[in-house]
Formats: sequence, C-alpha cells, structure tokens
Amino acid sequence: MGGRNKTFPDRQEAILRAAAACFARRGFHQSSMKEICEEAGMSPGSVYRYFAAKDDIVVGMIEADRRRWEAALRALPADEDLMVSLRRLADLGLADVEAHGFLHLWVETSAEASRNPKVARVLQQSYHLFEGLLAERVERAQAQGRVRRSLSPLAAARMILSTFDGLLLRRSFDDGLPVRESTAEFLAFLGRALGTHETGREPEGVA
Amino acid sequence: MGGRNKTFPDRQEAILRAAAACFARRGFHQSSMKEICEEAGMSPGSVYRYFAAKDDIVVGMIEADRRRWEAALRALPADEDLMVSLRRLADLGLADVEAHGFLHLWVETSAEASRNPKVARVLQQSYHLFEGLLAERVERAQAQGRVRRSLSPLAAARMILSTFDGLLLRRSFDDGLPVRESTAEFLAFLGRALGTHETGREPEGVA
Repeated sequence: MGGRNKTFPDRQEAILRAAAACFARRGFHQSSMKEICEEAGMSPGSVYRYFAAKDDIVVGMIEADRRRWEAALRALPADEDLMVSLRRLADLGLADVEAHGFLHLWVETSAEASRNPKVARVLQQSYHLFEGLLAERVERAQAQGRVRRSLSPLAAARMILSTFDGLLLRRSFDDGLPVRESTAEFLAFLGRALGTHETGREPEGVA
Repeated sequence: MGGRNKTFPDRQEAILRAAAACFARRGFHQSSMKEICEEAGMSPGSVYRYFAAKDDIVVGMIEADRRRWEAALRALPADEDLMVSLRRLADLGLADVEAHGFLHLWVETSAEASRNPKVARVLQQSYHLFEGLLAERVERAQAQGRVRRSLSPLAAARMILSTFDGLLLRRSFDDGLPVRESTAEFLAFLGRALGTHETGREPEGVA
C-alpha cells in the first residue's frame, strides 16, 4: 500500500534491505533476483528500474555504506584527539558487527570484489576515501604534536583500516573471539604504534 | 596414466590443486564437483573417495594451508629476533599473494566459513594454532627484554595476524595497493607497537 508512494531513495533502500536479508540467508550467489523481488514485495519491473543486475545491488550496498562512514568521518570534531576519534569509529563498527548477518555480507562483498572488476572499483573508491580522510586526521594530530611526526599519514591510515578489517574478518567465522576486548587492545596497540599517549580510558602500561 | 599409481596424499593434493584452479576461475559456489573431477582428470568415484562434498575440499585446503604455516612457524630459529621472524613470515605470505588466484580463494574461503559451521570450525582451529605459536614467540621476546612486558602475548599475536589479514583483504580487490611497501610499513608499525627497536632493515625514525 504505502509502497506505491515511496520516493526513489526509499525504494532503493528497501531493495537493498531485502537483498541484504536474502544474501545473509543464502549467500550472494545462491540468491536470485526473483527472491530479492519477493523479499522486497516489489515486481521485477520495479526492482530492475533501480538495479539492472545483482552486482549493481552489491555496488548500491557499498555506496550506501560509504555515505554512512564518510558522514561519520566528517562529523568527527576537528580538534578531537585522534585516539578518541578512533575509539568513536570503532564503536560504530562494533554496532555493525552485532547486527545480524552483517559480517557474512561484509566478507562476501569483499569476495565478490576480488573477482568482479565492477564491484572492486567501487570498493576501492570507498577505501581511498576512508584512508584519505583518516590520513588528514593523522596529519592534524602530527601538527599538534600528538602523533609521531616521522610516520607517513597515509601508511598510518592504511594500518588503522587493515587492523580493524583483519579483526572483522576473523570475527566473521569465529564467534568465540571477544570482539570488544580485542578492539580495546587493538586501539591501545595503535596508540603505541602512532606514538600517542592519549589512549583515553586505559592506563598506559609501558614497560 | 601415472595417476593410477599415485599414493593417497598425492591424489588428495591433485584434487585440491584442481579444485583451487576451478574456484579461482569461477568461484566456489559456481564450481561443481563434476568440473573439479574433470580438472583433476579423475572419475567422480575416485574424487568422492577422498572428499565427500565440495566443502570437504575447502576443509582440505584449509588443513593443507595450516600444515604449511605450522611448519614455517615451528621452523623459526628459537632465539631469532621477533621482528626478523615476522619479516620472514611476511615474505612467505607475500609469495602466496603473488600466486595467481590465491587471494580470491583466500577471501572466498573466509566467506564460506562465515556461513558454514563445518568450514568455520576448521579455520578457527588454524587461527588458534597460529596465534598460540606466535604468542609463544612474543613471550620469549618479552623474557629476553626485547618486547614491552606489559603486553598480553595473545593480544599481540592477534594484532599481528589481523594486521596482515586486513592487508590481504584489501589487496584482494585492489591491485593498486603497493603490497611490499605496505608490508614493510606494517612491520615497522608493529615493531613500534610491540616496543621493540629491532626493526631490522629500516632506521628507527622516532620523533
């Protein structure tokens, strides 16, 4: 009923949500466009107006994720301590991890990108954007004397992203991994690697 | 011809190699047991004697990989500096990265593990083994006064694994990522996080 009057972004989002539910249940390759249409409660004609193929849906998911993380990165207070900002971003990531089916979808998106150039290109753009925005924060912290100046901001940004990606990857197949504790430990490690002593909540137990 | 006299491990390995080629070409879910048999040049009857289902092949791949990395970890000289050992392990990993189809297969294995409990269990065992062996190395380095004593060896081992997993994940869909340079930068970061000044080839540019 209400569906008929939905606006373009609303419908697009509804399709992405339906596809995410299908992919979480049966995986990307085992889900058909037909199943996605049924899950979304839309006709194939309507769905195809928004997404011509299944990999366009994956692209749409990556772009929605990019907008969300870009907004979070840009919303960080300009002069906030880098470690406080990283903790804030990690908390956002942890909320994702706890959402049902998220981790599987996340790994499967990477797997698809590793063989599908169209998906790869869009995911590369996300990472370039994220690491660029993070590198700016590292540079600012260096200018304030809060982070070791000899580090390459881009390398530091890459290290930060990779650390958390590795943790998510591990968690995706290992429920037993204590993800909150590991995140806190990883932040403390990153703080030491960056040469900052602003590790916030925890004592700096340097031997 | 020669195939007929092959021993059990030889045949098993030939099937794993054939499956890896199929998965690299078409992905795990799009490859059938029939295609794997053809690629291996064996009858379905022979292949099923070794692997009852496609996910048993994935399990076989994970176990082969585990044996290889376990051997590499155990072969590290007992008193070798931790950073030198990590560089040695990173070089082994880089050789994998450069093998055709490896990264895609690696990500797809994780994706399968994130939804298939049988595959997940075996991959978890590999990670527990690797992080246990790495944690022993960290502990030894701490006892020698080469690594900050306040670190939890297990947390350090997890951080090391995650860092490189994150780098592999990124590289799997981004050919433009300079993987050797990134590895060198990551090792330098890890050295700083661990509190070791034995970063080997590069100068310790601490501000």
